[in-house]
Amino acid sequence: MDATVRIDQILGEALARAGASGGPPLLREALEYAVLPGGARVRPRLTLAVAAACGGEHRGLADAAAAAIELLHCASLVHDDLPCFDNAGTRRGKPSVHAAFGERLAVLAGDALIVLAFETLAHAAADAPARLAPVLMCVAGGVGAPHGIVAGQAWECEPSVDLSQYQQAKTGALFAAATMAGAAAGDGDPQTWRELGERLGEAYQVADDLRDVLARGDELGKPVGQDVALDRPSAARELGVAGAVSRLEELLAAAMASIPPCPGREALQALLMAEAARFLPKELAQRAA
Amino acid sequence: MDATVRIDQILGEALARAGASGGPPLLREALEYAVLPGGARVRPRLTLAVAAACGGEHRGLADAAAAAIELLHCASLVHDDLPCFDNAGTRRGKPSVHAAFGERLAVLAGDALIVLAFETLAHAAADAPARLAPVLMCVAGGVGAPHGIVAGQAWECEPSVDLSQYQQAKTGALFAAATMAGAAAGDGDPQTWRELGERLGEAYQVADDLRDVLARGDELGKPVGQDVALDRPSAARELGVAGAVSRLEELLAAAMASIPPCPGREALQALLMAEAARFLPKELAQRAA
Repeated sequence: MDATVRIDQILGEALARAGASGGPPLLREALEYAVLPGGARVRPRLTLAVAAACGGEHRGLADAAAAAIELLHCASLVHDDLPCFDNAGTRRGKPSVHAAFGERLAVLAGDALIVLAFETLAHAAADAPARLAPVLMCVAGGVGAPHGIVAGQAWECEPSVDLSQYQQAKTGALFAAATMAGAAAGDGDPQTWRELGERLGEAYQVADDLRDVLARGDELGKPVGQDVALDRPSAARELGVAGAVSRLEELLAAAMASIPPCPGREALQALLMAEAARFLPKELAQRAA
Repeated sequence: MDATVRIDQILGEALARAGASGGPPLLREALEYAVLPGGARVRPRLTLAVAAACGGEHRGLADAAAAAIELLHCASLVHDDLPCFDNAGTRRGKPSVHAAFGERLAVLAGDALIVLAFETLAHAAADAPARLAPVLMCVAGGVGAPHGIVAGQAWECEPSVDLSQYQQAKTGALFAAATMAGAAAGDGDPQTWRELGERLGEAYQVADDLRDVLARGDELGKPVGQDVALDRPSAARELGVAGAVSRLEELLAAAMASIPPCPGREALQALLMAEAARFLPKELAQRAA
């Protein structure tokens, strides 16, 4: 089964549990709206790829880890789009959750998605109970304080910010959680998989900065030119378009080199290079060149 | 060690992990501010009491379950106080988190507390790995969709609401999670402990409605008269003060009767009656009579 189809199936099962009868209907709708249809599912695809490459994979737990990573990513998008943060009216080519359901349901949907992520891990733990805690800690470390994506967003509230610390927390942390949780669900040592996630996260951030500069609104599904508008740090602003493209290539090479020895190393490299090609759509890469 | 001292110690350890160096300082401050000093710690005291009564308690996991329940309670207070919900300027006798730190850090602090709750469970799982998933599911069920406190808050966004369903989710669910998680951390069957939590939650809600009507602002540490001001359902409004006091007594009797057979049943009953006496402070009970 294609990884994206598999991920959407696991997400659908988790959403069905959260949307079981007897709960508030609008919250159920908001949760589905926030998760389906999804974006590129880059992070959970990474989790599944690493789990498979490590061998000894507990399929159910790897699937759940992938779903948890994506649910937490969706939660962060819902909260980041809120009026008090980016005040984004669109996301993935449709109105953002708060634009469609109101601010209160957007706050609550984000909260419920965070809870659902951890609940999904617990649901899948039966066949490998001793692995639940390590997988959960990898996932939580990528999301919470002091170094996860919530902390990354909180750096925007500080009077002064260390740029690399900010970007590492805001983007790299969840990519690192994706690789580490995949390793923990298989026979891998999560710590040896951190660098791959961090490098890919940096590469993704650079590609995102480039997309923000190069794309038109109808191509991106969310507002463009936001980094300049909101005066956010951006590789494309700092290095120029050509410099940012070089940086992207360097980061991807470093990512591939960092992959630790494992049964499926070569297949994983090939898979990740194909994945990374999707970070920056071909039309935009041509526009950059 | 007194239960409240023990709970504050576990909470302090969790906050220290979330506030480890290298994270954004204001988020760390907001997290501590939201959790310490606390309220009556009613829910985590309940978790510890049930775990001890069940016997076979895994002390570390019971402690973590208690802390997780309280962290999630604090998270819900931070988000419920936001401008888009109750817009409460005070909480526990001091400015609410959004009043003190701004709306953005209040959203993020709530998110980080939810993550920290589950991370705290995973940290404590080493001595009883097979119990992590059951404890986590009890905790998550009390918080997320479709029946937890987030769903309870979401009922306020629906055009029509079943009152008992609303109150069960808004208050009863986390009390039920407190008793059930305590049982799961010991030798108890969580399902047989659900009713105790639900009845105590209902009793607590009735007492809260009475406090809202009877107390002065300086006694409550948060705004009074909010149920009338926000047109919220309230036992004191529906049954009158005397009727609500009777209802409170009925619910406590039903709660005590529901306690399943367990090694520490009698001690637990005595403890819970003493706890319940704190739901409605003596001065207010006298004012009601």
